[in-house]
Amino acid sequence: MSSSNNLEKILRMKKRAELAAGKRTCSLVLKNCKIINVFSGKIIESNLAIDNGKIIGIGNYEGDTVVDLNWKYVAPGLIDAHMHMESTLVTPDQMARIIVPRGTTTVIADPHEIANVSGIAGIQYMIDSIDDAQLNGFFMLPSCVPATPFENSGYRLDKDALSTLQNHPMVLGLGEVMDYPSVIDGKIDILEKLEMADRMIVDGHGPALSGKQLNAYMINGIRTDHECTTIEEMEERIGLGMYVAIREGTAAKNLDSLIKGVNNHTKFQCMFCTDDKHPEDILSNGHIDYNVRRAIALGTDPITAIQMATINPARCYNLRDIGAIAPGYDADLIVFDNFEKFEILEVYKKGYLVAKNKEALFKTKKIASEHVQGTVKISPIRPDQLKLPLESDVAHVIRISPGSIVTEHVIRRIYLDAEGYFESNRHLDISKIAVIERHGKTKNIGIGLVENFHIKNGAIATTISHDSHNIIVIGDNDNDMAIAVNEIVRLQGGITIASGGEIKGLLPLPIAGLMSTESMESVSENLSKLRDIAIETLSIPSTVEPFMTLSFLALPVIPELKITDNGYFDVSNFSFISVSEK
Amino acid sequence: MSSSNNLEKILRMKKRAELAAGKRTCSLVLKNCKIINVFSGKIIESNLAIDNGKIIGIGNYEGDTVVDLNWKYVAPGLIDAHMHMESTLVTPDQMARIIVPRGTTTVIADPHEIANVSGIAGIQYMIDSIDDAQLNGFFMLPSCVPATPFENSGYRLDKDALSTLQNHPMVLGLGEVMDYPSVIDGKIDILEKLEMADRMIVDGHGPALSGKQLNAYMINGIRTDHECTTIEEMEERIGLGMYVAIREGTAAKNLDSLIKGVNNHTKFQCMFCTDDKHPEDILSNGHIDYNVRRAIALGTDPITAIQMATINPARCYNLRDIGAIAPGYDADLIVFDNFEKFEILEVYKKGYLVAKNKEALFKTKKIASEHVQGTVKISPIRPDQLKLPLESDVAHVIRISPGSIVTEHVIRRIYLDAEGYFESNRHLDISKIAVIERHGKTKNIGIGLVENFHIKNGAIATTISHDSHNIIVIGDNDNDMAIAVNEIVRLQGGITIASGGEIKGLLPLPIAGLMSTESMESVSENLSKLRDIAIETLSIPSTVEPFMTLSFLALPVIPELKITDNGYFDVSNFSFISVSEK
Repeated sequence: MSSSNNLEKILRMKKRAELAAGKRTCSLVLKNCKIINVFSGKIIESNLAIDNGKIIGIGNYEGDTVVDLNWKYVAPGLIDAHMHMESTLVTPDQMARIIVPRGTTTVIADPHEIANVSGIAGIQYMIDSIDDAQLNGFFMLPSCVPATPFENSGYRLDKDALSTLQNHPMVLGLGEVMDYPSVIDGKIDILEKLEMADRMIVDGHGPALSGKQLNAYMINGIRTDHECTTIEEMEERIGLGMYVAIREGTAAKNLDSLIKGVNNHTKFQCMFCTDDKHPEDILSNGHIDYNVRRAIALGTDPITAIQMATINPARCYNLRDIGAIAPGYDADLIVFDNFEKFEILEVYKKGYLVAKNKEALFKTKKIASEHVQGTVKISPIRPDQLKLPLESDVAHVIRISPGSIVTEHVIRRIYLDAEGYFESNRHLDISKIAVIERHGKTKNIGIGLVENFHIKNGAIATTISHDSHNIIVIGDNDNDMAIAVNEIVRLQGGITIASGGEIKGLLPLPIAGLMSTESMESVSENLSKLRDIAIETLSIPSTVEPFMTLSFLALPVIPELKITDNGYFDVSNFSFISVSEK
Repeated sequence: MSSSNNLEKILRMKKRAELAAGKRTCSLVLKNCKIINVFSGKIIESNLAIDNGKIIGIGNYEGDTVVDLNWKYVAPGLIDAHMHMESTLVTPDQMARIIVPRGTTTVIADPHEIANVSGIAGIQYMIDSIDDAQLNGFFMLPSCVPATPFENSGYRLDKDALSTLQNHPMVLGLGEVMDYPSVIDGKIDILEKLEMADRMIVDGHGPALSGKQLNAYMINGIRTDHECTTIEEMEERIGLGMYVAIREGTAAKNLDSLIKGVNNHTKFQCMFCTDDKHPEDILSNGHIDYNVRRAIALGTDPITAIQMATINPARCYNLRDIGAIAPGYDADLIVFDNFEKFEILEVYKKGYLVAKNKEALFKTKKIASEHVQGTVKISPIRPDQLKLPLESDVAHVIRISPGSIVTEHVIRRIYLDAEGYFESNRHLDISKIAVIERHGKTKNIGIGLVENFHIKNGAIATTISHDSHNIIVIGDNDNDMAIAVNEIVRLQGGITIASGGEIKGLLPLPIAGLMSTESMESVSENLSKLRDIAIETLSIPSTVEPFMTLSFLALPVIPELKITDNGYFDVSNFSFISVSEK
C-alpha cells in the first residue's frame, strides 16, 4: 500500500497529467516564446505552460497568469559543470545573488577548499548555504583532502569520512581526483574512495595524461575531465567515453583552444565549466553565460553552445529533472533576445521569476557559520621566526611566470647577512616567501625564495593558499611580513598588505579564511583597492596579479617548485629539497 | 573499514590500474584490429587488451594469449533495446544459442507474456534462465498485466507485486506502459507503478499519441518509445527527450521509414529493437545485426548504425559497463570484416570467445521450470460448448487484413441453423473463433466470427494469444475445434491443427504455453511443417500467416474489434458488444 507521502506524490502526478492533457489551467503560461529545444536542436515558436515548478508542455495551454515574452528566446537554465564556489570569495548565498541573474541555475560544486580547512562540517556548510528555490547546488565529495601527503591541512578526509555524506540527496559522487599518480599506481587509499563512489559520478583531473597512463587513470570509473588544454587531450578523453568540461575561469582559459574540437561526433560529450572564477571577473564578464557567449562569438552553433551548458552536463551527472524544456522538467529558464549578445534578461527558477536585468529578485538566507569561523588557530608570530638560514649563497628559487600557475625551478646567487641568513637586496628581484601552518596542528613555518614577484617595501599575506589554505606571506622584510600575518590572525582569515610597519589594506575572509560575508560587489571593490595598494605602495607591476599568484605558490601538485609548511617541494621529483644548493 | 568483499574488489581495481598502465601482462590481446570507437566515431587501427572480462586498453599491451584479427573490425556487442523473449518461442537459454552468434550480447527484455500466465514466478524464471557469461539479460517489469481490465489472464500484477522484483540487480525499471489512456487520464493504479519506478527507466508504448496527449503520457517519467511508425512521431518524441527504439521485428517493421529521421541532431537518441521476432525470421535474417545491416544498406553511416545498437541504448538504460570499447567496459565484442555484409564472424563475451561462424561455442543451462509448466488449467471441452446462439442472421464480424494486427469491424449477413446457432457455409468466408480462459479462473468461453482467414476442413488452436494467453481456436466446425483445443490441454500448451476429426500437426509449448524446450531450429522446422499443413489441409492461402494472425485476435488494445474470453470487445468504443446486430 502507498504511504500518505506516496499518495501525495501520486496525486501530484495525477494533476500533472491532467494539466499536460489540457484539462486544467496551469499556474503560468509564457506566451510567444522562441523555445530552444536542446533535444531536437530546433527553435519552437510557441507557448510554454508551467505549474508547481515543473514544465507542463509546449503548446496552447491556459494559464492563471499569462506573460507575453514577445518572441524572446527561452532556454533551459545554465549549468556550471565544475566549480569551486570558494573562488568567488563570497558565501554561496551571495554568489547566487550574482550568478543566478547571469543565467546559472545549477552548479556542480566541489567544496574542496573549505574541506581542507573545516572538513565535513565545511562541506555541510556549503550544502546548507544553497537555497534550491534560487539555485541548484549539487556536490562532488572532495577526493583529495589534503591535496597531497606533503603538506598539513585542517582535515584529512578518508573514505570513511566522505561516506558520511555519500547518500545526501545533493551529493552526486566523488570530486576531481587530482592525485592521479596514486590512481595510476593503484594506491589503496584512493581506490577505496573510487570504490565507494562506484555507480556514482567520479570527476577527473588528469592534465596531460595520455595513452596507458590515461587508461590506468580512468579504468576504475573516472568519467570527466576539465583540465584539457589541447584538442588532442580533449579528443583522447572523449574517445574513452569521458565528458570534457571546457573551462573558462579567471586563471585557466581553455575555451578558445578547445571549442574547435566540438563537432557532430563530440558535441554531446562536451560541457562548460568555470572551475575557479573571481568576483571582478564574474561581475564584469559573467559566469557560464560567458562561456556560451564566447563560444557563439567563435562560431559555434548557438544551440550546440547552449546544449553544452544544459542537457549535456545534466546527462553526464544523471540529473533527470533539469537541462531541458520538456514536460516534467524543472521550469528553470533563461530569457534572452539574441544569440550574439547572449545577454540574460530574465531568469525563472522552478517557475518563479528570480532575476531580471541582471538583478536578483530574491532575498538570500544566512545560515549558522560558527563551525567554519575561527579557523586561524595560531598565535601572532615574531619577525625573527621568518629568518632563513642558508648554508651558501647559492639557492633554489621559485620563478613565477605572469599569468600561469606553473613555476620554474631556478638557481640563483643571493646575499647572506653576517649571521648566514638570507638578506634582501634591492638590485635582485628575490623575495622571501613563508607558509605558516594555521590549522592548529604543527605550527610549521616553511620558508623559501621567489623571483619575478617584484614586491618592495612591504608584504602581502593571505589565508587563501591552495589547497591546504595555510597562511602564505611574501615580502621584502620580515617585520612587514610578520605584521601582515598577525593581522590575518586578528581577522581570522583574509588578505592583508603591510608596509612601513603598518597595515595598508585588508579584506576580511572570516568564513574558513576563504570567503567574505559581504556582497560580491563589495568584495570586488575591496580587492580592487588592495590591488591599487599593491601597485602603488609595494611597486608590484600590473602584469603580476599578486593575490592569485601568491595563492597558488603553495600547491604542490603543479610543477616545478612550490613552498609548503614543510618547506620546498620539488614537484618534478616529488620530494622535499632545502633552499641552499649544497 | 573495508569489508573483505570490498577489499577483494579494491585489489581487483588495483590490478586493473596496473594492467592498464602496462605494468602487468593482460590475459588476452587481440592484435591488428580496426576498433570501432562509438564515442569519437572513429576507427582505430590498434590492439585491444583484455583481462578478467574487462577491456583494459587500446594500444601496445602484452598478452598471455595473443590473437591476430588480421585487421578485421571489432565493435561492442549489440544491444536489443526492447524485446519479448517469449516471441522467439524457445527458452532464453536456447534463444541465446542463436542470437549471441549473431552479435547480440545484451537484451533488454519485458517478460510480459509469461507474466500474464505465471506472474512473478514467470518473470523470475526468465531472469534465472539467462547466463550472463553468454548474454546480458536486463529486465523491465511488465507494467500492464493484464493488458486491459477486459480479459482474464493468469495473474494481475499491481505495484506491490512488481515491487518485489524492483531491486533485483538485473531489473532496470518499468516495462512498456501500454495502457496509455490510464496514464493520460491519471489513473491511480498506473501512477502507483510509475511512482514506484521513479528514478528508474520507464519504457513507453504510445503509438500515434501527439501534442497534449503525448505530453500527458510522458510527463510522469516515460522516457522511451518503440512504437513510432512515422518520422513525425519519432521527431516529436525525440524533441521531448525520449529515446526512440527503431523496431524491426517479424510483424512490425519500422526501420525503412524511420531511418531517414536519424541525423546529427537526433542520432544519439535513437536505438534499435526487435520487439517481437520469430524463430524462422531470426534464423534466416538475424537479430539486431539485421537492423544494423539494413540501416547501412539504406545509407546510414555505419558508425551511426553501430552506435544505435551499442552506446545509445547503454546510455538510455544507464548501463555503464557495456556498449563501448574503452578501459573498464565489459569485453563484449563482435568481429566482422566488412560493413556492407555486416556478417558477425566472432563474438566475445566478457573476454571469452563464445561464438564463431554463427555457431555458439557454449553449453546452455536448463533451469527448473515446474513453476511455469502445467499452465493449461482446464478440462477437455465438448464441441457443443462452442455453439454460438444468435438473435438474428446479421452479425458483427472481425475482418482481418493480411500483414496487419489491426482488424476491421464489419457487419455481415450469415446463416443460422434450425435452432438459431451460427452455421458455417462453404460459400461465405466466415469462420468461428473462440477464446477459452485457461488459467483456472472463470472457464469463460468467448465466441465470435472472423472474415478473411479462409480456413476450411478443420481448426487451429494455440495458447499464444496476446496478451492474456488464453486458448484461442478458429475453425469451420465445432468438432475439429474441440479436438484442437483438447490436444492443447493434453500438451499443456502449444499450437495444434485438427482436421477430419484428428490431429494433423502440433508444436508443444510446455513453458507457460508460450515456449518450447527444444532448439530454435527444431521449433522453426516444426512451425514450417504446421504452415504447410495449414495451406494443404486447411486451404489457408499463403498470404495469411495463420498462427501469428490468430495470436493477435484476442488483444483488446488494437483496433477495431477483438475477441476475449468475455466475448467481443469493440476497441474503438472500449466496450463489449454481442455478436448479433439487434
